[in-house]
Amino acid sequence: MKDIQSQHDGRNLDIDKVGIKDIQYPIVLSDKEKGRQHTVARINMYVKLPHNFKGTHMSRFVEILSNHSSNIDLYKVNDILEEMKEKLDSEESFIELSFQYFLNRKAPVSGQSAMMDYHCRYVGSAGAKGRDQVLTIRVPVMTLCPCSKEISSYGAHNQRSYINISVRMKKMVWIEELIELAESCGSSPIYPLLKREDEKYVTEQSYNNPAFVEDVVRNVAEKLMKEDRVTWFEVSSENIESIHNHSAYAVITRSK
Amino acid sequence: MKDIQSQHDGRNLDIDKVGIKDIQYPIVLSDKEKGRQHTVARINMYVKLPHNFKGTHMSRFVEILSNHSSNIDLYKVNDILEEMKEKLDSEESFIELSFQYFLNRKAPVSGQSAMMDYHCRYVGSAGAKGRDQVLTIRVPVMTLCPCSKEISSYGAHNQRSYINISVRMKKMVWIEELIELAESCGSSPIYPLLKREDEKYVTEQSYNNPAFVEDVVRNVAEKLMKEDRVTWFEVSSENIESIHNHSAYAVITRSK
Amino acid sequence: MKDIQSQHDGRNLDIDKVGIKDIQYPIVLSDKEKGRQHTVARINMYVKLPHNFKGTHMSRFVEILSNHSSNIDLYKVNDILEEMKEKLDSEESFIELSFQYFLNRKAPVSGQSAMMDYHCRYVGSAGAKGRDQVLTIRVPVMTLCPCSKEISSYGAHNQRSYINISVRMKKMVWIEELIELAESCGSSPIYPLLKREDEKYVTEQSYNNPAFVEDVVRNVAEKLMKEDRVTWFEVSSENIESIHNHSAYAVITRSK
Amino acid sequence: MKDIQSQHDGRNLDIDKVGIKDIQYPIVLSDKEKGRQHTVARINMYVKLPHNFKGTHMSRFVEILSNHSSNIDLYKVNDILEEMKEKLDSEESFIELSFQYFLNRKAPVSGQSAMMDYHCRYVGSAGAKGRDQVLTIRVPVMTLCPCSKEISSYGAHNQRSYINISVRMKKMVWIEELIELAESCGSSPIYPLLKREDEKYVTEQSYNNPAFVEDVVRNVAEKLMKEDRVTWFEVSSENIESIHNHSAYAVITRSK
Repeated sequence: MKDIQSQHDGRNLDIDKVGIKDIQYPIVLSDKEKGRQHTVARINMYVKLPHNFKGTHMSRFVEILSNHSSNIDLYKVNDILEEMKEKLDSEESFIELSFQYFLNRKAPVSGQSAMMDYHCRYVGSAGAKGRDQVLTIRVPVMTLCPCSKEISSYGAHNQRSYINISVRMKKMVWIEELIELAESCGSSPIYPLLKREDEKYVTEQSYNNPAFVEDVVRNVAEKLMKEDRVTWFEVSSENIESIHNHSAYAVITRSK
Repeated sequence: MKDIQSQHDGRNLDIDKVGIKDIQYPIVLSDKEKGRQHTVARINMYVKLPHNFKGTHMSRFVEILSNHSSNIDLYKVNDILEEMKEKLDSEESFIELSFQYFLNRKAPVSGQSAMMDYHCRYVGSAGAKGRDQVLTIRVPVMTLCPCSKEISSYGAHNQRSYINISVRMKKMVWIEELIELAESCGSSPIYPLLKREDEKYVTEQSYNNPAFVEDVVRNVAEKLMKEDRVTWFEVSSENIESIHNHSAYAVITRSK
Repeated sequence: MKDIQSQHDGRNLDIDKVGIKDIQYPIVLSDKEKGRQHTVARINMYVKLPHNFKGTHMSRFVEILSNHSSNIDLYKVNDILEEMKEKLDSEESFIELSFQYFLNRKAPVSGQSAMMDYHCRYVGSAGAKGRDQVLTIRVPVMTLCPCSKEISSYGAHNQRSYINISVRMKKMVWIEELIELAESCGSSPIYPLLKREDEKYVTEQSYNNPAFVEDVVRNVAEKLMKEDRVTWFEVSSENIESIHNHSAYAVITRSK
Repeated sequence: MKDIQSQHDGRNLDIDKVGIKDIQYPIVLSDKEKGRQHTVARINMYVKLPHNFKGTHMSRFVEILSNHSSNIDLYKVNDILEEMKEKLDSEESFIELSFQYFLNRKAPVSGQSAMMDYHCRYVGSAGAKGRDQVLTIRVPVMTLCPCSKEISSYGAHNQRSYINISVRMKKMVWIEELIELAESCGSSPIYPLLKREDEKYVTEQSYNNPAFVEDVVRNVAEKLMKEDRVTWFEVSSENIESIHNHSAYAVITRSK
């Protein structure tokens, strides 16, 4: 059969990335605590296509994914990226994984625990300019409005907020480390399971630690500035305002 | 050209609904205050297909929609439903419209105003058993947890909650009426624009009116039980808990 | 500490369902082929709340989920439902699980295989009227338009379509069985991994088996009418039309 | 009342962007054909916050939006950006608008017309480095696989594909121009309303113009390279493969 994809293309245009998008796959990740964690990922895999080739070979991406899915170590994604370059005959390869990551969280007083989900995204590439990797986590926290607390005779509006941290790393940072960093930067962490004594604790702790959306991103940025493994970061917070039908939002991006 | 759709089908199976789904269209709605309101709708249109026909004629749905989109009066959707039955040669027709509805909302103290969006859904049908219509609105409100208030020395967790009300009507109820009904059933309405004096008011009002998710749906249900134009309703509330990464939810359904 | 939830409520309104919504959890399912399958579920858990109680106890839902998540057998969800009734002191309990289910699929000629995802939903309840369970699967297939084939000198438009099957069962039907049933009812099954010889096969097979959206739902309905374990079903197909920016849709619902 | 937001912050961290996110608003846009077009937008508005201020004033964003929403000319967004800088006392302002844009489309043979929706996004900023604006449109087209056509005895798989074009402009390009450019780069444009003679035309036209996802982005890139008003562009195509449950994807980004 004719291999149309391998034919010559005369338009003189490299394609930056070509491949498969939004394939869902069960994966097994390496996990700081338990060693291994099963989850489900939405995955994109691309390679660069030089200007003289008409097309890439889409089925090979799925073959490579299939070979690696039962053991994806974010610390060793380079193996996959190298295999992509080789099997797809390209000088640059890219992989993007979005998944829920689960951690056991203990309630602050009762100590009762359950799993909580954190949305994560890993983007890795390998090419002429070397390797690049950006890890993004989304951590839900509670924020209580300093202005509302100050001006009101009692109470203060508060809400669920999502802190998004993206880091470019020269050495891997554990997902668990970033989650803990983020949880310390709102008015209070949030939990999957709270008994009454825990609910009292969380309510009072958040009232004692009011934080604007601006405070949250500054709190996180201050800590990441001191983190040597991180060469670039972006931190945003989106507060699902309890008094509005829209969000308050702030973002800080820094290269180091 | 052959009309495949009109061919005979021998499987002896009526199709309950067949047509077009998820077409987006600009529409003009009748509005209680200003007379007319422009918005964008996601629309489904279906007819019943008798067992002896192979297929329906999809382009006719778009023709009918196109003729009516610049003036959709929820009080006169019957015209569209009748036209669907006639042009598609069917004994039963269905239309579903999902859209954002906008109302001007005044802040409670400063009186400053801006537009707020409410997600709505209208489902209408006309057939052998007569006409049926269900209107659904989603109203964001603030809820403050009675338990958190009671057990904590200060503060109380609160959050944005979405009240969903579906009503089956013998006589049309205005969208505006349902929104106002819902807004009176949480701890406080929420607003697009609040100055500092308004924020103080909303914070204190919500602290004075704590409500569980159970209270919210009971508050709404009590009011709908007394509304004569409504023959059936379903009310749910989804509280985007500020202390968890999941929602609290309650629902009451009643026929009258 | 005061137990506000257990206080008396005088509004005389039972709440049909109250509980937690949209909690994400890693689960392990029983699987026809491999015995066990790890995936991630979005879960709702509710109980009925009698009119005289003010509120339910939300943390207990998470405790129960946590105890069972590492081994959820859809054939034994009854255990969870019974535990919910007991621990939440209610006469009726409900659980809803949405998850991606993965199956190894072999390409039709080359025999090469990879995993394909199928969105599933399980809704179970246990109450005074006994137990009820509805399983829903979404199966992507290829559909090729009979009209386009008939009237065109060459080619025929085709597209990805999603067949949704919901079944109410007196005896459990395997997810795998429903997937196979659905895949036989479009113009061709679709696959995660196809080599050139497979692509030729799928292209020609779909051209040889044109099917309207009406044909797809009738094909499925005919088969489900003969399935004794199924007491009620709803089958719909949504065709992501390649010639429009909207879908073609059909649905058949039957009680037996 | 105390103005907490205006207090001093000592952490020495500028915030790149702070403001409101995901507010929905009815807007009126300038339109090449009819002069004005009503639609609904999801809007983000941000300013830069200097390191010495604790917070911004969120209500002012909504005030500004409210003043301008009934007449948003993408050619004059600069007015809004300047007002944001002034009223929020900042040296840099940002606005992001996402909305459905509607155009009347005529079927290729019958000439029958209806509205088709195109998702658009406009991102504008004004600051020390001058003004920047990026317009993004998403245009659905039909793509037919060249490989499938070549290797199969008859037929060829085809599907709906979304072409995304982002352009940075020194002079505004009309949304209508970008849509027409995109529609000429797949196997065939798609339409809201097609009669049988149109369906035959579209089926045959797409069969005569097979295009890989790689071809689509190269076709668009070639045309944008010649467009003087555009200083930078990114074009991607996402093909909702009819033979897989995932997409084929390609992207080209170029500065000029």
